[in-house]
Amino acid sequence: MENTFLQSVSYENGVLKILDQTKIPNVTEFLEITKIEDAWDAIKQLKVRGAPAIGIAASYGLVVGIKDAPENSYADFYSFFKKQADYLGSSRPTAVNLFWALKRMDERAQKEQEQPIAKIKRALEDEAHLIRKEDEEVCRSIGEHALRLLQDGMGILTHCNAGGIATARYGTALAPLYLAKDKGWDIKVFADETRPLLQGARLTAWELMQAGIDVTLITDNMAAMVMQKGWVQAVIVGCDRVAANGDVANKIGTYGVALLAKAHQIPFYVAAPMSTIDLETKTGADIPIEEREAAEITEGFGKRTAPEGVKVFNPAFDVTPHELVTAIITEKGILTGNYQEELPRLF
Amino acid sequence: MENTFLQSVSYENGVLKILDQTKIPNVTEFLEITKIEDAWDAIKQLKVRGAPAIGIAASYGLVVGIKDAPENSYADFYSFFKKQADYLGSSRPTAVNLFWALKRMDERAQKEQEQPIAKIKRALEDEAHLIRKEDEEVCRSIGEHALRLLQDGMGILTHCNAGGIATARYGTALAPLYLAKDKGWDIKVFADETRPLLQGARLTAWELMQAGIDVTLITDNMAAMVMQKGWVQAVIVGCDRVAANGDVANKIGTYGVALLAKAHQIPFYVAAPMSTIDLETKTGADIPIEEREAAEITEGFGKRTAPEGVKVFNPAFDVTPHELVTAIITEKGILTGNYQEELPRLF
Repeated sequence: MENTFLQSVSYENGVLKILDQTKIPNVTEFLEITKIEDAWDAIKQLKVRGAPAIGIAASYGLVVGIKDAPENSYADFYSFFKKQADYLGSSRPTAVNLFWALKRMDERAQKEQEQPIAKIKRALEDEAHLIRKEDEEVCRSIGEHALRLLQDGMGILTHCNAGGIATARYGTALAPLYLAKDKGWDIKVFADETRPLLQGARLTAWELMQAGIDVTLITDNMAAMVMQKGWVQAVIVGCDRVAANGDVANKIGTYGVALLAKAHQIPFYVAAPMSTIDLETKTGADIPIEEREAAEITEGFGKRTAPEGVKVFNPAFDVTPHELVTAIITEKGILTGNYQEELPRLF
Repeated sequence: MENTFLQSVSYENGVLKILDQTKIPNVTEFLEITKIEDAWDAIKQLKVRGAPAIGIAASYGLVVGIKDAPENSYADFYSFFKKQADYLGSSRPTAVNLFWALKRMDERAQKEQEQPIAKIKRALEDEAHLIRKEDEEVCRSIGEHALRLLQDGMGILTHCNAGGIATARYGTALAPLYLAKDKGWDIKVFADETRPLLQGARLTAWELMQAGIDVTLITDNMAAMVMQKGWVQAVIVGCDRVAANGDVANKIGTYGVALLAKAHQIPFYVAAPMSTIDLETKTGADIPIEEREAAEITEGFGKRTAPEGVKVFNPAFDVTPHELVTAIITEKGILTGNYQEELPRLF
């Protein structure tokens, strides 16, 4: 029952394989990349998306890029390596995980500098595998913890896409669903389409279907009725940032789903890798909320569906206050209750 | 400050004028109809929509159609009249209000049968004006009652389109907003786009903009955040049917908005013309909920945005339990409290 899930970024025998996320849900196509320029392009064109997946793609992209690096001296090798790394970094200068991964590769290169160049190249390939593997372990661990909160036969609602294709594997909020499937559980997932950008319709519905998980797509405004019908026993979502008091910033619409869950006495779970917990941010009020362009709402599908010049409010995220969060699930375990006290203990 | 609102159906000097609702929000175009075939076509092609507006368009369409009816005898006139009425009835055989209006015209024709034919024709024109005027009075009356629940400076959230273009004028839920505008009040309206068919984006935002009312378009999943920010002091929606206990069936998403309003202590008002109150239906559980085709969600914008073959749940309406409804506003006044007892007293 394993291997129900397809990996969005992988590397084997000198070939970087990337699921082209710009083509789903209509076409499932993998790019086979053997030149660094194509890795740069895949990151630049958002063919690979999701912070962890971008980091992994960059690491492997760098491995591809240094295949023909000079092996005569470390100095020559490192200068070549640096150029390739800087080049990859220019593909998406705002992606934090991209630089985090390139920096880790750089540190490894320097650490191995006494070794023969051929061995350094192998070490860097190992490092890229390690970056991928660590992310997979984080996701799997979140999935295993979260699974303890779920049961065979449950209906589970999720919002946006905190899924496997954005990570090494499993995803965060979707991780327990893949593990439940592997256990042979019969779960029924409801995926909010998640306007305006429809990550739920395009990505979540797609990847769960690929894994053979029973998923039903609904518009965001149907979540309340689906709960009213008694079809949902748990809500699980990902997050962009958790503040020190447990307030959670996540895709717009999450706060509404949390309120609806409360009104129907349904637990509301947040899957949060340690990397999203930010103790420097005291409360949700301190999290800046990006406002995006009106066109995402007025002509989001290539067709104008609202009057020219209409005023639009288009926040990318909202903040769910900690008191609505039944549990925060990290790779280190499950938190419930007083997040203010419990969150610092994780570090 | 009057006349801020444009009428979607009107008649003057032998010409039926219909706002082509299939072209908004992109183009504002009025059809000028002098032949019954064009009226038939406007109804058939949904160029005029909304139960009251369809009834009014059919009445005027019939007036246009009998312009050249024989005037030699009532029998000849009536046979011609009947043929034209049946023809119009064939345009949209499921539209109850269409037949209601044609029946009323028929009754008037028969009532006037002792009169000269020219006078009968004028009487039928009067009847059509009356049908329009009565609907306008119902809407205006709902608007006046609802206005007592609102105040200058308020933020008001609405869902779907219970607006003027679906009625003779004013609409139901939007009626108090037009009256507030006429009074010079400064109100700020938030319009949920209302997936899947986007009536909020296409119609509500458009007609409020036409009237110069401050309207901000949001996706359905932003309503919670807008309330959290303290921008909304009242929610007002229309309805499709009110059951004897005050449960309300309305466009999908209404129930969720009602729950969000309650969570933020915001009053939730339902504008309900007497024609929507159905004492034969005991509770909301007895209201059949139409499920519509998946394509509205998966390719609602002329472009496929969800995986081929994905399961979809697409209910057209939901039911808001009476305990979430702060007040029901009819043309006869405002009900609050025990709807079970109060609703029958209206009749």
